[in-house]
Amino acid sequence: MRRVAIIGAGMTKFGEEWEKGFRELVVEAGIKALDDAGISGDKIDGGYIGTMASGRLIGQEHIGGLLADYMGLNPLPITRVEGACASGSLALRQGFMAVASGMKDIIVVGGVEKMTDLGVTTVSDILGGAGDQEWELFLGATFPAIYALMAKRHMVEYGTTEEMMAAASVKNHKHGAMNKYAQFQREITIEQVLKSKMIADPLKVLDCSPITDGAAGLILAPMDEAESYTKKPIEIIASSQASDTIALHSRETLTGLNATKVAAKKAFDMAKMTTKDINLAEVHDCFSIAELMAIEDLGFFEKGQGGPATLAGKTALNGEIPINPSGGLKACGHPVGATGIKQAVECVWQLRGEAEGGRQVKDANVALSHNVGGSGATAVVHIYKN
Amino acid sequence: MRRVAIIGAGMTKFGEEWEKGFRELVVEAGIKALDDAGISGDKIDGGYIGTMASGRLIGQEHIGGLLADYMGLNPLPITRVEGACASGSLALRQGFMAVASGMKDIIVVGGVEKMTDLGVTTVSDILGGAGDQEWELFLGATFPAIYALMAKRHMVEYGTTEEMMAAASVKNHKHGAMNKYAQFQREITIEQVLKSKMIADPLKVLDCSPITDGAAGLILAPMDEAESYTKKPIEIIASSQASDTIALHSRETLTGLNATKVAAKKAFDMAKMTTKDINLAEVHDCFSIAELMAIEDLGFFEKGQGGPATLAGKTALNGEIPINPSGGLKACGHPVGATGIKQAVECVWQLRGEAEGGRQVKDANVALSHNVGGSGATAVVHIYKN
Repeated sequence: MRRVAIIGAGMTKFGEEWEKGFRELVVEAGIKALDDAGISGDKIDGGYIGTMASGRLIGQEHIGGLLADYMGLNPLPITRVEGACASGSLALRQGFMAVASGMKDIIVVGGVEKMTDLGVTTVSDILGGAGDQEWELFLGATFPAIYALMAKRHMVEYGTTEEMMAAASVKNHKHGAMNKYAQFQREITIEQVLKSKMIADPLKVLDCSPITDGAAGLILAPMDEAESYTKKPIEIIASSQASDTIALHSRETLTGLNATKVAAKKAFDMAKMTTKDINLAEVHDCFSIAELMAIEDLGFFEKGQGGPATLAGKTALNGEIPINPSGGLKACGHPVGATGIKQAVECVWQLRGEAEGGRQVKDANVALSHNVGGSGATAVVHIYKN
Repeated sequence: MRRVAIIGAGMTKFGEEWEKGFRELVVEAGIKALDDAGISGDKIDGGYIGTMASGRLIGQEHIGGLLADYMGLNPLPITRVEGACASGSLALRQGFMAVASGMKDIIVVGGVEKMTDLGVTTVSDILGGAGDQEWELFLGATFPAIYALMAKRHMVEYGTTEEMMAAASVKNHKHGAMNKYAQFQREITIEQVLKSKMIADPLKVLDCSPITDGAAGLILAPMDEAESYTKKPIEIIASSQASDTIALHSRETLTGLNATKVAAKKAFDMAKMTTKDINLAEVHDCFSIAELMAIEDLGFFEKGQGGPATLAGKTALNGEIPINPSGGLKACGHPVGATGIKQAVECVWQLRGEAEGGRQVKDANVALSHNVGGSGATAVVHIYKN
């Protein structure tokens, strides 16, 4: 297996980008990634694009063909992959495998979602397709309800409080306020979170990641060629993916995601590392409770200690293990197909020492990204090194 | 690169399968493929599933997670890929790459679509998402209209006639009448095609593939392990994919698909073969004109000679080059995500000498499958050998 490096990274601003269509977003991210790598499209051998629900959101499927066309890459093979909110990381993983295997050399991978052209209830219904349509969504369980069930159980089993969950949102908004690409570049307080509108008890609106437009892109190359393109190649030292049941009711526990645990173990084994070696992590905080579960399932904290650790500031920029320096899904926004790639872009910037706005993690040499599909039927973990 | 073999193949009956849901279809095909390979799920290392529009057709995305769950394969990584009507072949291609690269050993690949629960106009609109939503579908150009434009131009440039196109449908129905998995197991005549209801001039309803439910699955393994599972491993000796513009208006020609030409050239180069070495081909006949263009673009006949060759019976079961012995998309039906895998299943059966009902091609040693996404923004070609 060849070593694989990220040689280019770029993203659009995340937000309600009403002036930009799906095509503009994905092309902007792709061109930024190419520019960052200092290469032109004729060096590319193919690519992968992650998007969850373009069919329902904009009426367009066949996103691989569309991207090849609008990036001027015809007749190169570009393939769309989909794993709900983990679609971006699945694209990265397919690209990693293509380069690692020696089947391809220079690969573009991207993620995109254009979500704000439809109403919130419609989008919520569409997102429900990431869970079990027949046994959850059809019966009314949209995602806030599904994660609320997990939150309630976590509170019962471990004494997690609404303040602890709120602390994740507050910390992520603080980070997001330093990120010019974030949807919400402003700080919030625990009191504001607790007083914000109830969505699905105990989750308030400020416990929830928003609906967002955005795209992000990366250029991958074999490590031994990477230095001819960039002085700061970032190596992907682990890539893993695991599955779990699509519906919550089939799981042994509601307080953690088995797919995250399995993917994390595989990734740490592949990287020959432990949580102690990780300097920062971008984790999947689609809801505040999801971040608490993620930092437990990934092994940064014992089960049940994610909440207290977050409230104590251990996951802040200057804490024990900085979590979501980008602002996470909560503050950056969550254009579902783009999120996995955005996490990787943030890791690249952090490991290059190029994170702007005061959010650079000191001595960042190893980073981890964790991307979840739906309520955890898919989890993808990558580890990066400078 | 390791040699890759197909060690198991299976499919559901294609048709209006109102008694079976999406999940039943995909599980049935997967279990048939496993049974055919004589292995159980614990031998599997992962998989890929192709489906085009499950989000819009049944409200369910995250098909990789769903499949891992319903096939009992958790926590294995299963990834959905999408390339419109070429989704199935893209799944096969990803599986091929995973095994060829040595990154995975035993892989399940599948394709599925559940289409008949919605009305025809709704499904037609959904399928339009395989083309250019903004510049074609939004303006009313559904797929029959898009292929009608190609047909008209082919008639003008090469003298192709409606009879020649009809001959493709007649031949495919003749083959389908011998295939117990086909949606339409009955013969039709050229006169019936010509007198059938006009859909988009010059395409009549019997020039068009139908709307269909169905699923198909394959088990892949390294060639050097394949013989421990089956006495008749079928080797995949070429896999290629190419892209073209998503919209028809951007192309140099309307009378052929450049993606098919590029993918065919790459596949023949990879297999070190020419059209002369191919004993049968499953090609993408979403419309009768599409088959005529395919057999030209693949190189079986000169440009403009696809129609006369078809009318002369050169593509019949006992002709120069048997095309679509399964009955093709026209008679088998076209559950879009499943079609690419079904083509491979037919090639496997033909190369094993197991094609039933009188449709076995004599001395079949090398077969080719050709799967198109949309109006040709993606084309995928595989070549198989016994």
